[in-house]
Amino acid sequence: MRDGHPAVDGRPATDGHPAVDGHPAVDGRPAGWSGAAAGAVPRTGASFHDMWADLRGIGRDAASGGYRRYAWTGADADCRTWFQEQAEARGLAYETDRNGNQWAWLGDPRGTDAVVTGSHLDSVPDGGAFDGPLGVVSSFAAVDELLRRGAVPTRPLAVVNFGDEEGARFGLACVGSRLTAGQLTREAAHALRDGDGTSLPEAMEAAGYDPSAIGPDPERLARIGAFVELHVEQGRALDLSGDPVGIASAIWPHGRWRYDFRGEANHAGTTRLADRRDPMLSYAETVLAARREAELAGAVATFGKIAVEPNGVNAIPSLVRGWLDSRAADQATLDTVTAAVEAAAREAADRQGVDLAVVRESFTPVVEFAHALRDELAELLDRGGDRPVPVLGTGAGHDAGILSASVPTAMLFVRNPTGVSHSPAEFAAEDDCVAGVRALADVLEGLACR
Amino acid sequence: MRDGHPAVDGRPATDGHPAVDGHPAVDGRPAGWSGAAAGAVPRTGASFHDMWADLRGIGRDAASGGYRRYAWTGADADCRTWFQEQAEARGLAYETDRNGNQWAWLGDPRGTDAVVTGSHLDSVPDGGAFDGPLGVVSSFAAVDELLRRGAVPTRPLAVVNFGDEEGARFGLACVGSRLTAGQLTREAAHALRDGDGTSLPEAMEAAGYDPSAIGPDPERLARIGAFVELHVEQGRALDLSGDPVGIASAIWPHGRWRYDFRGEANHAGTTRLADRRDPMLSYAETVLAARREAELAGAVATFGKIAVEPNGVNAIPSLVRGWLDSRAADQATLDTVTAAVEAAAREAADRQGVDLAVVRESFTPVVEFAHALRDELAELLDRGGDRPVPVLGTGAGHDAGILSASVPTAMLFVRNPTGVSHSPAEFAAEDDCVAGVRALADVLEGLACR
Repeated sequence: MRDGHPAVDGRPATDGHPAVDGHPAVDGRPAGWSGAAAGAVPRTGASFHDMWADLRGIGRDAASGGYRRYAWTGADADCRTWFQEQAEARGLAYETDRNGNQWAWLGDPRGTDAVVTGSHLDSVPDGGAFDGPLGVVSSFAAVDELLRRGAVPTRPLAVVNFGDEEGARFGLACVGSRLTAGQLTREAAHALRDGDGTSLPEAMEAAGYDPSAIGPDPERLARIGAFVELHVEQGRALDLSGDPVGIASAIWPHGRWRYDFRGEANHAGTTRLADRRDPMLSYAETVLAARREAELAGAVATFGKIAVEPNGVNAIPSLVRGWLDSRAADQATLDTVTAAVEAAAREAADRQGVDLAVVRESFTPVVEFAHALRDELAELLDRGGDRPVPVLGTGAGHDAGILSASVPTAMLFVRNPTGVSHSPAEFAAEDDCVAGVRALADVLEGLACR
Repeated sequence: MRDGHPAVDGRPATDGHPAVDGHPAVDGRPAGWSGAAAGAVPRTGASFHDMWADLRGIGRDAASGGYRRYAWTGADADCRTWFQEQAEARGLAYETDRNGNQWAWLGDPRGTDAVVTGSHLDSVPDGGAFDGPLGVVSSFAAVDELLRRGAVPTRPLAVVNFGDEEGARFGLACVGSRLTAGQLTREAAHALRDGDGTSLPEAMEAAGYDPSAIGPDPERLARIGAFVELHVEQGRALDLSGDPVGIASAIWPHGRWRYDFRGEANHAGTTRLADRRDPMLSYAETVLAARREAELAGAVATFGKIAVEPNGVNAIPSLVRGWLDSRAADQATLDTVTAAVEAAAREAADRQGVDLAVVRESFTPVVEFAHALRDELAELLDRGGDRPVPVLGTGAGHDAGILSASVPTAMLFVRNPTGVSHSPAEFAAEDDCVAGVRALADVLEGLACR
């Protein structure tokens, strides 16, 4: 973002946020705060800007311009090295937990009632720069901002990078937070395999992490008093309302279903249409049915991934495997959509003499973030104007959604002017990112420094 | 086929074909005919049966039961070794030509007006056992049958294995015969690359073949007086007519078109339906349009191969690339179908705000096999009954279709009771295969031994 945002470097020190930039100079520093780092506290924007520039080249595909930071790969290792360096440069106590999640502590890592903030650094295939990294970079920048303000934490404060949030490699999202929260058993984690047949423990070991202790981590969980995840918005609600930052209300219920349409492989040039059992036709009808049913219900439904066998130009497929991702504001609506899509798929399969098996591969019920914490955030972010900070739902899953079952959890969203996400075109303006850092710092100061 | 066909081993020596099995014993043998091999001439069925058993395990995938004999791979090398062994066991003069096609000569390889028979040994992904190998095995078995009959060739006779007929690895069918016939230039062949980026010359070199001389081979072509390819039928015409063997009339015109639907990658959970540019929807509409237009025109049209980017469960695709394979009995019908499919695709793309590019990747005009040779085959195969040998068209491309532009060419088809091809379920009864061998021997005897 450095090249495209010259205005940032030339911004005056107070830049319209006197309540923040005008904070008194650093004085009483908590244990673990590095004197060396504190000696050169950068401005909020500059801190964010420099970290962003460090991270932007890692795992980026030159051709697509998108990120390929898959769990336990070389690009992931480079992101993890960056995280550790950020922790050490600030004198924060660095550790990885039994599940490979990274933590940087200000205050006692063994203390209780900790305030934790962070997100993830991995990406979907050819993902954008913001989904995940914005939360981690903003967390470190918010720590810098607390230092600038001279805020003194009274509770342990940590920045976390949860491993394998996107599930791009092993097909299950939020592996790091699920393991920690006990929502993924050790056995199920051992059974996860990537497209090459490498298991999760093998991948961790190959990346230099000891996988022998992966599994639930209730002691760690019990020490967390609140978790706050900042994330780029993945829709246009803030753009439409004109706000740089919002607070999450809930994560929509969300499921993934695998549709296996099995027909009969045959020669595309010689097999009469009447003799065919072509699963591509059933799949195509189902794709259109999913869109139609989602539209009717005000939900979303997407077939974005497909695997075809034998996948030859001159072969009628024997198997078309498509994955349906569907989400809705409430469970009843989601049930309506997914039942209608499955019914349409069965009719389409019957018409072609094709067999259909539908498997629900994952499901996350609605997540209502803790109301008390959400209200506290709204109060901390109240600038005294006549407009409250917007509160919005989201269709995307997050580590915050996993942790919210065990820990009071909240999320902040930063404006996404196009709504585009999971794409190289994903974007947030640097001014909005810096506003997000300040909002996160306000929240951390309010929660951990009073 | 050994296990499922016990009747073959127990078949009496004359098994209802006295005109063939009752042929007088071997006497005057042509140059190049191995005395050792001739000393133990097997019955027609046994010769076929044993070769079939030798070949059946090569390149077969244990899980799918289908064949993966791709050009210049290890499985292909094993098939080629088998071919050379068959040539040498019969005392035939073995050679590979400048394009890696294999030849086994009875008589002078440098003579003129040669009669050539054969097919290919490579396969589509998870292909069947018969498409290709049936023609090569039947060619060697027909040579054995000529030996049994004591037929003495008066023209050079060769069995050929054309390389890379299916195009499974480099995306272009009939590479070996196209090169020989001058229908694929040296430059275009050098530009062919497989999915891993390996070029055709590199693949040949890795397999131990010198690629330095690949290109047109007019001298070799000029020495061929007739080419006859036996092939398993890839439809049910012979099954419906009740004949074990038929003669080809023509190969339908045939093309492959690549449809690139480009939309916008985005998050499947958070992007409003109205904000999407989802190319999967346009693709699905086009798949259904292709089927509809083919049905209306009495043609075939198939989308059997697809590539999606980024192909993630929770990502709206940025690109859906689908390949259309379409064929019809005549050019005008094919043009009607493909124009209608493209028009439907453009409408579907426009509706979603998706960009569409359509590229014709290959095209083969109608091939009418030489009428004089076809009539000669019909006469040679006339058993004196009241039913002539059926003559049928086909939607499949073959090396015979390539060679027919330069050389009088004919094809024999062997009954396929299900019509299934390019699938592990591809099948022909061994009795029909043996009938095919006898028919091919009749043709070769008539063309080369009079």
